[in-house]
Amino acid sequence: MAPTLDGRDDVLWSDPPRGPLDAYRACASFSPRELQLFWEGEDLLRFKKTVFSALEKDPLFAGSRGADLPLEKYRELSFLRCKRIFEYGFFSLDNLSQNPLRLPALVYCLGAYDWSVGTKFALHLMVFGSTVHSLGSERHLKYVEKVLNMEIFGCFALTELSHGSNTQAIRTTAHYDPTTEEFIIHSPDFEAAKFWVGNMGKTATHAVVFAQLYTPDGQCHGLHSFVVQIRDPETLLPMPGVMVGDMGRKLGQNGLDNGFAMFHKVRIPRQDLLNRAGDVTPQGAYVSAVKDARQRAGVALGSLSSGRVFITGMCVVNLQQAVCIALRFSATRRQFGPTEEEEVPVLEYQVQQWRLLPYLAAAYALDHLSKSLLLDLAGLYQGRLRGDHGARQAELSREIHALAAAAKPLVSWTAQQGIQECREACGGHGYLAVNRLGDLRNDNDPNCTYEGDNNVLLNQTSSYLLSFLERGVQGGAHFQSPLRTVDFLEAYPGMLGQKFKGTSVTDWLDPTAPLAAYRWLVCYLLQRSHQKVAQEKRSGRRDFEAKNNSQVYHMRTLALGFMELTAVQRFHERTHSPEVPPSLQAVLSRLSLLYALWSLSRHMTLLYQGGYLSGKQAGEALEDAILDLCAQLKDDAVSLVDVIAPPDFVLNSPIGRADGELYKNLWGAVLQGTGALERAAWWQEFSMHRPVLGSLKAKL
Amino acid sequence: MAPTLDGRDDVLWSDPPRGPLDAYRACASFSPRELQLFWEGEDLLRFKKTVFSALEKDPLFAGSRGADLPLEKYRELSFLRCKRIFEYGFFSLDNLSQNPLRLPALVYCLGAYDWSVGTKFALHLMVFGSTVHSLGSERHLKYVEKVLNMEIFGCFALTELSHGSNTQAIRTTAHYDPTTEEFIIHSPDFEAAKFWVGNMGKTATHAVVFAQLYTPDGQCHGLHSFVVQIRDPETLLPMPGVMVGDMGRKLGQNGLDNGFAMFHKVRIPRQDLLNRAGDVTPQGAYVSAVKDARQRAGVALGSLSSGRVFITGMCVVNLQQAVCIALRFSATRRQFGPTEEEEVPVLEYQVQQWRLLPYLAAAYALDHLSKSLLLDLAGLYQGRLRGDHGARQAELSREIHALAAAAKPLVSWTAQQGIQECREACGGHGYLAVNRLGDLRNDNDPNCTYEGDNNVLLNQTSSYLLSFLERGVQGGAHFQSPLRTVDFLEAYPGMLGQKFKGTSVTDWLDPTAPLAAYRWLVCYLLQRSHQKVAQEKRSGRRDFEAKNNSQVYHMRTLALGFMELTAVQRFHERTHSPEVPPSLQAVLSRLSLLYALWSLSRHMTLLYQGGYLSGKQAGEALEDAILDLCAQLKDDAVSLVDVIAPPDFVLNSPIGRADGELYKNLWGAVLQGTGALERAAWWQEFSMHRPVLGSLKAKL
Repeated sequence: MAPTLDGRDDVLWSDPPRGPLDAYRACASFSPRELQLFWEGEDLLRFKKTVFSALEKDPLFAGSRGADLPLEKYRELSFLRCKRIFEYGFFSLDNLSQNPLRLPALVYCLGAYDWSVGTKFALHLMVFGSTVHSLGSERHLKYVEKVLNMEIFGCFALTELSHGSNTQAIRTTAHYDPTTEEFIIHSPDFEAAKFWVGNMGKTATHAVVFAQLYTPDGQCHGLHSFVVQIRDPETLLPMPGVMVGDMGRKLGQNGLDNGFAMFHKVRIPRQDLLNRAGDVTPQGAYVSAVKDARQRAGVALGSLSSGRVFITGMCVVNLQQAVCIALRFSATRRQFGPTEEEEVPVLEYQVQQWRLLPYLAAAYALDHLSKSLLLDLAGLYQGRLRGDHGARQAELSREIHALAAAAKPLVSWTAQQGIQECREACGGHGYLAVNRLGDLRNDNDPNCTYEGDNNVLLNQTSSYLLSFLERGVQGGAHFQSPLRTVDFLEAYPGMLGQKFKGTSVTDWLDPTAPLAAYRWLVCYLLQRSHQKVAQEKRSGRRDFEAKNNSQVYHMRTLALGFMELTAVQRFHERTHSPEVPPSLQAVLSRLSLLYALWSLSRHMTLLYQGGYLSGKQAGEALEDAILDLCAQLKDDAVSLVDVIAPPDFVLNSPIGRADGELYKNLWGAVLQGTGALERAAWWQEFSMHRPVLGSLKAKL
Repeated sequence: MAPTLDGRDDVLWSDPPRGPLDAYRACASFSPRELQLFWEGEDLLRFKKTVFSALEKDPLFAGSRGADLPLEKYRELSFLRCKRIFEYGFFSLDNLSQNPLRLPALVYCLGAYDWSVGTKFALHLMVFGSTVHSLGSERHLKYVEKVLNMEIFGCFALTELSHGSNTQAIRTTAHYDPTTEEFIIHSPDFEAAKFWVGNMGKTATHAVVFAQLYTPDGQCHGLHSFVVQIRDPETLLPMPGVMVGDMGRKLGQNGLDNGFAMFHKVRIPRQDLLNRAGDVTPQGAYVSAVKDARQRAGVALGSLSSGRVFITGMCVVNLQQAVCIALRFSATRRQFGPTEEEEVPVLEYQVQQWRLLPYLAAAYALDHLSKSLLLDLAGLYQGRLRGDHGARQAELSREIHALAAAAKPLVSWTAQQGIQECREACGGHGYLAVNRLGDLRNDNDPNCTYEGDNNVLLNQTSSYLLSFLERGVQGGAHFQSPLRTVDFLEAYPGMLGQKFKGTSVTDWLDPTAPLAAYRWLVCYLLQRSHQKVAQEKRSGRRDFEAKNNSQVYHMRTLALGFMELTAVQRFHERTHSPEVPPSLQAVLSRLSLLYALWSLSRHMTLLYQGGYLSGKQAGEALEDAILDLCAQLKDDAVSLVDVIAPPDFVLNSPIGRADGELYKNLWGAVLQGTGALERAAWWQEFSMHRPVLGSLKAKL
């Protein structure tokens, strides 16, 4: 049963202010309060409310987020805000373990406010802290304690100036010196400088540094991670031998200090090797429970999967806020109308609905995908903590790795495209910085390339899927993957004979229709990809080339299609589960179907090429179904964004405020701009120093 | 015959510096020098070189473009730079009339340097100045002279806070008072404030203001334009009754001061009505040669078409620079390889080629489209100057209006998506501000929404196309449009029976294949759109609704498809004309074909739905042809960008420099960053004022 709450629990819910959005709110088909409770659950809802309220009441979080400040000032402000979060003590190890979504929720709240704060906090606590914890052992707990107290400040140094995706080619070295029992961390040249490291620019005192480990016998044991102190916590001055600095301005997240570091034979104690994958004895012998060097590297980089899943939630926060702004704008902005006197809200236009409502559906669908992956991850870690080394645990790890590697591309791109659509859908007003769509886009952008470039990552998922053919799935053998995301491959290749039998909109409005089409699609792409790689190999190409030449239109699409199926499937299950209150069933199933059909429609060429669809009716009916769902959802749109919108203080967008007073808010914000009405300080440049036309012509 | 130039004319061409890009340059199939001369022509090439050299030598243009400066400072700098252009006297009315591409080329050079300068200059000279010239009469020439001398500074005030696309609903009024022979310009309320007006924020002294003209008899004669002085040129203080201010930070182009204005019964002389469409006698009678009010509004807004065409060139400049950066990066960045030792340039990967080379082809194709439209416009104006009121001139005006209304969407979106792809294709390094892809994206972004929102504009083109059905084209009647862009509709609807007969890559590599497919596609979309509107009307919907409900998947796609066909057709003609030197034929026809097939491939669903393609071979062959062309072009890519790249000083991107020294340039730029290696000024916030964990918990 769905949780219920006393309807007058004002801590959780205050009625939206009355205003121009009333009309749409009045005709919503459901209660936003009920949906919010069902969607978030009471625990997370209360927690988020607590965090948001604290920020709103704290003067340190008032006023400018910082993007309009000088770089140094913005970084200071973000650091102070990050520190303040520790003072609030929003998290304790106890309450975090109760609900694995809580710590992510805290970071997502901070990110909704400003990603410079959210990322800074997460890099220190969850990336540096968790990595030391999960890749180290008891001897490293001292660092974890200092992380939690903010006695030290951490960063994660993997990428180098000339190497990102190809982590195995990282060139920083760690030579063990048994005479002093130290590792010597060294950057052979500036191309091997650590680069892009968040928090490293100005604030980090310690870094997890990835380097090639060499024992005294000269043997390289591959990539390992080390805790390296880079600054003195008392003075924030660099440690001897460390050249560390700030990379300067980025396209967004400028409150975060991304940095670089070169190490000149920096000595660290032997114990500061994070030794989960392998260790070095005082005498200099390499010992590891993991025999294979590639597997060891896999352990070292294992934390990247959780980073990727975590990023999907960051993207969702951005997309949610963008659709809130654009839909509230669209419900109040009027332009043109059936007569010269009467103008209608732009949300009434089919084009505007079609541009925005699928992204609203995606904001829900991908939120659920992200949360469900976080729970899957939690399951994986519980297994690890139990010391589970069984086959299922290994398979679970592979499955999650494959899901994370495609989920980040799917969600980050959807968010990026969605935010851009939202910005354009707000016309000129979307281009005004104060309305925040620019910051959302710019802060979301790196999600597409960090923690693994999207296009490179998709490789991993498609290789995972192709491996099932090699493992004999095609015989129709029965098997279950731990998360059941690939179980439908049992029906491969027989399923390829299926065809869509419908011809009408109604046929597509059956929620099983897009699921069936997606399963066929993934099988079709699997077969195509398999055949393509085989054909490349027959032409004499080596594995490396054969795979590279099978990416476009094949493996890349396969991975994305599979991920979309997973998102569609999980959202379908969530919206059709017995726990859904009856009054929410209609709106949720419309959202689910809209996301499914809209995603599917981008693959329509393949559906036709492969014969799953034929004749123009089937395809046109799919398009009509999308437009029908948009029309059905447009009256619910404002209430659907009310459910996912953060408070106005956090959303921070005059055109997106809950009161819908678009022009008053915008006008007020513009007049509040620094010196908005003031004459330019340099006015004499016009009136006194007039240009003499062509006076410099001789210089040409 | 192609023009030729002495090979040692170093003014026009200096050999690119030697370095990591040598390998690709060495295997180019053509001479970049020859292509540059063919592509730009000697006149434009010399002119651009002169402008770029002047900027490079002038200290005012050295150093920061300004995006990292405080807003006020950046605006001052952009104003000073704009003023300096007048001092160089790059243009004279004489040499402008010789080559209608010259003035645009000047602005595009400035924009390549920084759009804040380019737009500021263009708004004053080409938008304000040209509008006064073209909408006014002899009595307004005094303003034009002052524009050319920069004695006054101009802006164009159409959009209001609550009205942009629906210009007819503009609410500013101009009441004529015969007692003083003045117009009274008035903003009824803040929602009618002029908004988004470039140059208005801090610098403009005069504005072309659009307002509803009322004669003393109380009659409204619709939208007219007036020259209104808004600031005193001596003091830059606002004129009495004018509340004028700056809108604040935008997503880009922040050196440009966009502003707002409210008029409180501001009186201007009767003569300051721009009277081309209509005039008011001293006594207050309205007189006009144009009888119909809608037509008069058409005259008033006619200048928007040239604005839209002009914008396509702005987008091209941005796209060209982005592909230069991304392709030079891709040719020098190495990652992974067939063996652990050997890493290959990322340009060797199929995915990277497929992501970038179609945008390189688009950068050429759309450059040509834009230039050809500018020449078409010049033809239209020559007709006007001749006083041509014939049917052909009217038809030409309609055709150009329809082309401009779809060209801006096509080119601005292609640039926006292309720049985003380039930014991602450079991985993290693309996210560093110093590499400039962010500025290109942010500065290009408003092109999608100003001078007519893209989605709204497409309506005008599709309506133009649909009107041919009403004009009886379908009988197969013979007709020719002045620019011949719609002549293929003669074959409608018979052409709809055509099918693609090929099955192989070779069939698609025939340059006539995509042209034929596009013609079929546009006819198919025309029929579908026509049927859809008719069906909506049969269901009882009014015209307004019927058209709105036929946008998505129908009229919107029709307009875009038609515009792509025009771009493909014109690029094809240019690259296959007898003037193309033999040594350039191969590379140019590949570019042409790649742009055509890549554009077409996005409509493949329709080709299948409508039966133009059937079976999987035809579609797969089209995809294979795209990949083949990418592979054929990848060795030419570096030289192709050398042809369109501005000098390094202008391109201003460490990872995109012509020397290809990716890491050295990037490392150098990062170390040059302000305080890159300095300890943060606020270091004590970490070491002295440590947070006490949970100390603020009581406040929650």
